[in-house]
Amino acid sequence: MGGENEKSGLRLWRNARLATMAEGAAGFGIVEKGALAARDGIIVYAGPEADMPASLGQGAETVDCAGRWITPGLIDCHTHLVYAGNRANEFEMRLAGATYEEVARAGGGIVSSVKSLRAASEDELVAQTLPRLDALMAEGVTTVEVKSGYGLDLDNEKKSLRAARLLDGERKVTVRTTCLAAHALPPEAQGDKDAFIDLVAGTILPEVAAEKLADAVDGFCEGIAFSPEQIARVFDKAKALGLPVKLHADQLSNLHGAALAARYGALSADHLEYTDEGGAAAMAKTGTVATILPGAYYFIRETKKPPVDLFRRHGVKMAVATDSNPGTSPLTSLLLTMNMAATLFGLTVDECLAGVTREAARALGLLDKTGTLEAGKSADLAIWDIERPAELVYRMGFNPLHARIWRGQ
Amino acid sequence: MGGENEKSGLRLWRNARLATMAEGAAGFGIVEKGALAARDGIIVYAGPEADMPASLGQGAETVDCAGRWITPGLIDCHTHLVYAGNRANEFEMRLAGATYEEVARAGGGIVSSVKSLRAASEDELVAQTLPRLDALMAEGVTTVEVKSGYGLDLDNEKKSLRAARLLDGERKVTVRTTCLAAHALPPEAQGDKDAFIDLVAGTILPEVAAEKLADAVDGFCEGIAFSPEQIARVFDKAKALGLPVKLHADQLSNLHGAALAARYGALSADHLEYTDEGGAAAMAKTGTVATILPGAYYFIRETKKPPVDLFRRHGVKMAVATDSNPGTSPLTSLLLTMNMAATLFGLTVDECLAGVTREAARALGLLDKTGTLEAGKSADLAIWDIERPAELVYRMGFNPLHARIWRGQ
Ligand SMILES: [Zn+2]
Ligand SMILES: [Zn+2]
Repeated sequence: MGGENEKSGLRLWRNARLATMAEGAAGFGIVEKGALAARDGIIVYAGPEADMPASLGQGAETVDCAGRWITPGLIDCHTHLVYAGNRANEFEMRLAGATYEEVARAGGGIVSSVKSLRAASEDELVAQTLPRLDALMAEGVTTVEVKSGYGLDLDNEKKSLRAARLLDGERKVTVRTTCLAAHALPPEAQGDKDAFIDLVAGTILPEVAAEKLADAVDGFCEGIAFSPEQIARVFDKAKALGLPVKLHADQLSNLHGAALAARYGALSADHLEYTDEGGAAAMAKTGTVATILPGAYYFIRETKKPPVDLFRRHGVKMAVATDSNPGTSPLTSLLLTMNMAATLFGLTVDECLAGVTREAARALGLLDKTGTLEAGKSADLAIWDIERPAELVYRMGFNPLHARIWRGQ
Repeated sequence: MGGENEKSGLRLWRNARLATMAEGAAGFGIVEKGALAARDGIIVYAGPEADMPASLGQGAETVDCAGRWITPGLIDCHTHLVYAGNRANEFEMRLAGATYEEVARAGGGIVSSVKSLRAASEDELVAQTLPRLDALMAEGVTTVEVKSGYGLDLDNEKKSLRAARLLDGERKVTVRTTCLAAHALPPEAQGDKDAFIDLVAGTILPEVAAEKLADAVDGFCEGIAFSPEQIARVFDKAKALGLPVKLHADQLSNLHGAALAARYGALSADHLEYTDEGGAAAMAKTGTVATILPGAYYFIRETKKPPVDLFRRHGVKMAVATDSNPGTSPLTSLLLTMNMAATLFGLTVDECLAGVTREAARALGLLDKTGTLEAGKSADLAIWDIERPAELVYRMGFNPLHARIWRGQ
C-alpha cells in the first residue's frame, strides 16, 4: 500500500478469468488464471497471473476478482441516443390498429422526433439522454457512438452534436460523435432532396468539421431517404474534410449501399438486411465492418435477415449495436442486443461478444485504443458475475455486471 | 406528522397519475390527478385527489409523487424461478451448430436442470434464485408465481417448493407456489410415464398438499411430456386434495390441452400457441385465463403464435408472464416480456399492462387481493418515471421504476 507504484497510478486486477478478445486468439482469448495491470489508465499487462512481471504487483492498488470474468468494456458503436421525447404514442397507435398513414397524419414518424429535438435546448437534450446512457453503462458500456440526424438544419444538427459532446463530461465514458445530417428530409425542404443534400454537403458538414463536432459522417441510403448518388455527394465532402464515413445501408431494400460504403472505405456499413454477395465481397476488400442491428429488425417486425453466412464466408467482420433510437429501436441494453443477434440471426456467442468489443472498436476506428484486453490499450473493463461468457448472451433482461472500469478507474 | 393516522399505519401517495387497471374501466382506468391511501397495507382509497375524504389526508405519512404514474405492482404469474446452474452452455452449443441430439448426448436438456437441482441444497437453491427474483422486483414486481418441476421425485419436488416458500422471507414480495411434478420424466423412470404419474398422483401431490407446500398444481401436456389422460389423473388428484390446477397446454402441438384445462376449471392454461377455437371457447366458458409466454416463443424460435384474436373474440382474459426458466426462457424482465407480447403477438398496450397486473392476479386466484388499485386490496404499487403507460411496453432494456411498494411499504 502507498508504494511507488500506487503513486504512479498502477492498478492491478488479479485472480480473474480474462476474455481478452484479442485478434486471432481462439474462443474469446481466454486466460483462466489471469491478471490485468494498468498504469495511468493504460493496460500494461493482461495475461496469466503466473507470468506477470513481479514489479507490477508491488505497491499497486490491487483488486481480487475472486475468479470473476473480465471482458473488454462494451462498446455500442451505433446509436441515436440524443433525442427529445419518445414515440411510445405511435407504438401504442400501431398496436391499436392504426396504419402508418394514420400515425403520420397524427404527427408521428421521424418528423415528430425532429420537432421535439428542435424544441429542446442543448441542456434538455443532455438531461433526456443521460438516463439512456446510464442504462447502457450499467451493463458495462465504456464507449458509445452517438449520431445526430433529428436536427436536419445547421443549428439543430450542431446542437445535437454539442449535446453528444457534453455527455462524456457528465459520465465516465468515451463518446464518439457522428454527423447524420443526411438522415431524412426535413419538412421545410418540401420534398427537394437534392437541395437538402446541397445544404448538408455545402454548409452543415463544413461547419460541423470546422468546429470539430463530429468524428465521422453517416447517411441513410434508402428509397424513403437518400439515393446512392446523393449519399456519394455527402461522402465526397466528408472525404474532402478528412472525416471517415459510415452508412445506413440496405436495411429495407438493396440499393447496393454496402458496396457504396466500401467504395468510400467506410468504417462500417450498418443494418444490411438486403445486402447481396457483391456487397459483402466489396466490404471484405476494404475492411468495412458489417454492423448488425437486431433491435430494429425485431422492433419493426422485419423478416429478412442480414446475410451473416455471406459475411462469414467473405471474412467481413461483424459488429453488434443497439441502434438505440425512438422510432425503430428504443433499446438501451447491449446485453439484450447480443441475445437478439444470437437468437434472431444465429450469431455465435464469440461473434456476439466480439461484436460489442473488438469489432465495435474497429467500426469506430478505435481498435488501437480499446476493444480488447491488450497492453497499450485503455483499461476499459467490464467485470462480471458469471461462470462463462455465454451467460452474457443467453440471459434476457438480467445484468450480471459486478464492476465497470473506464480508463483504469 | 405523528398524528393518529400515522400511528394507525395510514400512508398516502398524492399528486399522482393512476392507472388503476380496474375491471371494466376504459383505457387503464386512468385518474389524472389521483391519490391513493392505504391503512395497514390495504388500499382504502384510490381515485381523484379532489374527491378523497379529508380524514385520510390528516396525519398520514404522505408521499408527493410529483405527477408520476402509479400502476398496480406487477405480477409474474408463470415462472420456474427456482433452479440450479443454468443452460448457457447448451445455448452456446446450439449456436455453434450442435443438434438437439448432440446437446442431449452432452448431458443437456431438462435432465441437466434436474441433475443440478437434485445436487443443490435448499439454501443453495434460495441463494441462486434470489438474483433472479431481485431482477424481477427491480422492475416493480410485487407478486411472483414459482413452480417446482426440476426435482421430479418426492424429496426434490418438496425441496424446490420449500425453497420457493423461503423466498418471501428473504424479500418483500408475495410468492405463490405451484407443484409441477408432472413436468418431465426423470431418468430413473426409464420411460414409464404411467408409473411416474402414479408416483406424482399417489405420493408427491398428497405429501405436498399435506405439508401445504403448493398453492396450485400444474402439468405439461405435450407429446414430449404427458398425455391428456395422464394429466387428467394428476388433475383428479389435485381436485381431490382441494388444489386449483393450471396447465402448460398446446405449446408445440394441439393435444387439446386448453379444453382439458377448462374442463377442470383451471385457473389458467399457458403457452397456447396451437390452441384452436374449441379450446378458446371452452376457456371462455370456465373463465380460465390464457397466459401468454412470448419469452419462450422467442427463445426457441417458434413461428406459430397463440391465437390472440380467438381469445379476444371469445372473451378469454389474457395474462402475460416471463416463463423464466433455464432451458427455454432465461428471462427475468416483465417489462421486456410486455414488449415481446406487443411486438411478437400484437397485444395492445392495455392488454399487456392488464396481463401483468389484473389478469395475472386472476390467473393466480388472487384478484380479490391484488392486481388493481382498488379499495380493499393490498397496497402493492409500482411508481414510474414515465409520461404515459405505453412507455412501459415500448422500451426495451430500460427500467423507469421510481419506487416499488409492497403491502403499503
Ligand atoms: Zn441507425
Ligand atoms: Zn413454463
